[in-house]
Amino acid sequence: MPGPTADADRRPGSPLGLHRVLEPAGVLPQAAWRLDPSPRIWPDEVLVRVERLNLDAASFRQLREASSGDPAAMKASVLEIVASRGKMHNPVTGSGGMLTGVVEEAGPDSPLGLKPGDAIATLVSLSLTPLVITDGLASWDGASEQVPCEGHAILFGASIAAPLPADLPAALALAVLDVCGAPALTHRVVEAADRPVVAILGAAGKSGSLSAAAARKAGARRIIGVVPRQAEAAALRAARAAGGQARLADEVVIADARDPVAVAAAVRRAGGPADVTVVCVDVPGCEGGAILCTAQGGTVIFFSMATSFTAAALGAEGAAADVTMLIGNGYVPGHAQLALDLIRTEPGVRGLFDARIDVPASGS
Amino acid sequence: MPGPTADADRRPGSPLGLHRVLEPAGVLPQAAWRLDPSPRIWPDEVLVRVERLNLDAASFRQLREASSGDPAAMKASVLEIVASRGKMHNPVTGSGGMLTGVVEEAGPDSPLGLKPGDAIATLVSLSLTPLVITDGLASWDGASEQVPCEGHAILFGASIAAPLPADLPAALALAVLDVCGAPALTHRVVEAADRPVVAILGAAGKSGSLSAAAARKAGARRIIGVVPRQAEAAALRAARAAGGQARLADEVVIADARDPVAVAAAVRRAGGPADVTVVCVDVPGCEGGAILCTAQGGTVIFFSMATSFTAAALGAEGAAADVTMLIGNGYVPGHAQLALDLIRTEPGVRGLFDARIDVPASGS
Repeated sequence: MPGPTADADRRPGSPLGLHRVLEPAGVLPQAAWRLDPSPRIWPDEVLVRVERLNLDAASFRQLREASSGDPAAMKASVLEIVASRGKMHNPVTGSGGMLTGVVEEAGPDSPLGLKPGDAIATLVSLSLTPLVITDGLASWDGASEQVPCEGHAILFGASIAAPLPADLPAALALAVLDVCGAPALTHRVVEAADRPVVAILGAAGKSGSLSAAAARKAGARRIIGVVPRQAEAAALRAARAAGGQARLADEVVIADARDPVAVAAAVRRAGGPADVTVVCVDVPGCEGGAILCTAQGGTVIFFSMATSFTAAALGAEGAAADVTMLIGNGYVPGHAQLALDLIRTEPGVRGLFDARIDVPASGS
Repeated sequence: MPGPTADADRRPGSPLGLHRVLEPAGVLPQAAWRLDPSPRIWPDEVLVRVERLNLDAASFRQLREASSGDPAAMKASVLEIVASRGKMHNPVTGSGGMLTGVVEEAGPDSPLGLKPGDAIATLVSLSLTPLVITDGLASWDGASEQVPCEGHAILFGASIAAPLPADLPAALALAVLDVCGAPALTHRVVEAADRPVVAILGAAGKSGSLSAAAARKAGARRIIGVVPRQAEAAALRAARAAGGQARLADEVVIADARDPVAVAAAVRRAGGPADVTVVCVDVPGCEGGAILCTAQGGTVIFFSMATSFTAAALGAEGAAADVTMLIGNGYVPGHAQLALDLIRTEPGVRGLFDARIDVPASGS
């Protein structure tokens, strides 16, 4: 029975939050249709007072398109999803986002090391985080994926959270931490390769620009940024890498990521094919271009939540493309620190983020 | 304008088959909604007289469930899909299968080395293969994923096809070649690891048993087979590896692959967690179990066409699981030969296949 405080007599919660799954029984919270978001915490849980949601780019785009950009309709959609599922888990895209807030109560057995009053960002997806919204999203204008929000959320024993850094604006930190898995995995893959040529689809976006900086740091020989429009190309060309001289991307090309022939040709002209291709675009249909612009024996990392598993698997097979295709796992040890370090030290990335904060997501 | 013969004056076709895409324009044939399946071939294409389709396991299961197993309804569904899309591309699962047939005509510029009369199996997915069915599937009873069929199909310049081996029954060769990407990629991943513990979900099925044999050949230290039912456990326990003494799987455990806690516990009891986990189950919802039964730093290979990209990406993140997750690319150089060699030399795998040929797919 839900109540307002932790109950030390309760049986221990599952660190993965299985005890919060209402239906179907026995699945992980991410796979569940509905969670129990009641505020009475289990002994190893943490209760968070929510301040801001950050919808992931694929989900935000889908909501905006489904409501033709009408803010009232978008607000109603988000409220309906959270009310019916107990979490902000977009049923069309399958994705969520993350949130910032302040710790209200930490259960006695929580391993997260948080205490009441701590300002944090969650590093697990909203698609598995129990959530209740209490203000009807009255302060959200529907124009940004950052959603001011009152309510509460629950962290499980295994839920990762990061303290909000004191030296960065909260909205910036939230935007960086939302995509911090991408630069971390890119760094790992590029470092394991031998000075690879790296192509980044959506390189002027948030996960894209951080991944470009991470690829540089990890020893990429050449970084090819692919963007959809002239404005983004100009912004990316103007972005400098740390140290002052080098560009964030060595080459910047314009191509629609959904057009496989155009992407492959553009990357080839810019010094490709790529040994490592990183997909940071939030629209469906980018699997073919990513596969075709990658060299035989190369690797594609899919970070876009709009990626289709079958389109990637069968598309590569159909093109006789011997490429390793990675599902972009949002968790890599040290991911938050790496991303925050990059935003602090890479003026080009910082500039691209600053231009995007509080404006609608695009290409990220 | 389609006609019955290759026209050497025609502009060359795209080796990827882009010239056959009707809508939407510019995407790869796999991503297309509709292809042009007309029998008049481009100079680098091959026209095949179809004899048998092999629906992939996820598609067959979905069709069977959607029609409550009614053969007439299943037949109508397949005919409707092929008529409207110009290919057997299940719109729900996104997957296809492959086919066997006889080469009717090889264009003068085809690089595939085929000639009229050659009996072949396609190694590219039906989800990108132009196809026309002319017999109304009159000979299919709807009870097997192997579908006797009259009609024609088109191979592009880059479409891989394999001659049907003379020493194996056609139905067996088709079943083996349908899943030959799985053992090939499993072999590569296991060989690159250091004598890993390997868990195979759906180990008594077609791709699962071949992957078990490939893992053994590549140096796996221990192979844990996970199956859903007692009957499959018994069959897998009875399956011997090449050489006579060893079992195909060192340990066989029963668990519902959709129950993450049960899978993780079963694999742990059998000597896990796994360093490499191979997902060969054709039902949705197996991402969580695969992630939880894998050790930190380990690898999961998803071969199931029922895999959800977001459930894998966000599920691993939510569990703070640092696992590398691979999209099972159906193309690995040498995949057909490796799989055929395994079926010839591994009596345990052969036995499991023989028991499944011409019976409904399950767990594979």
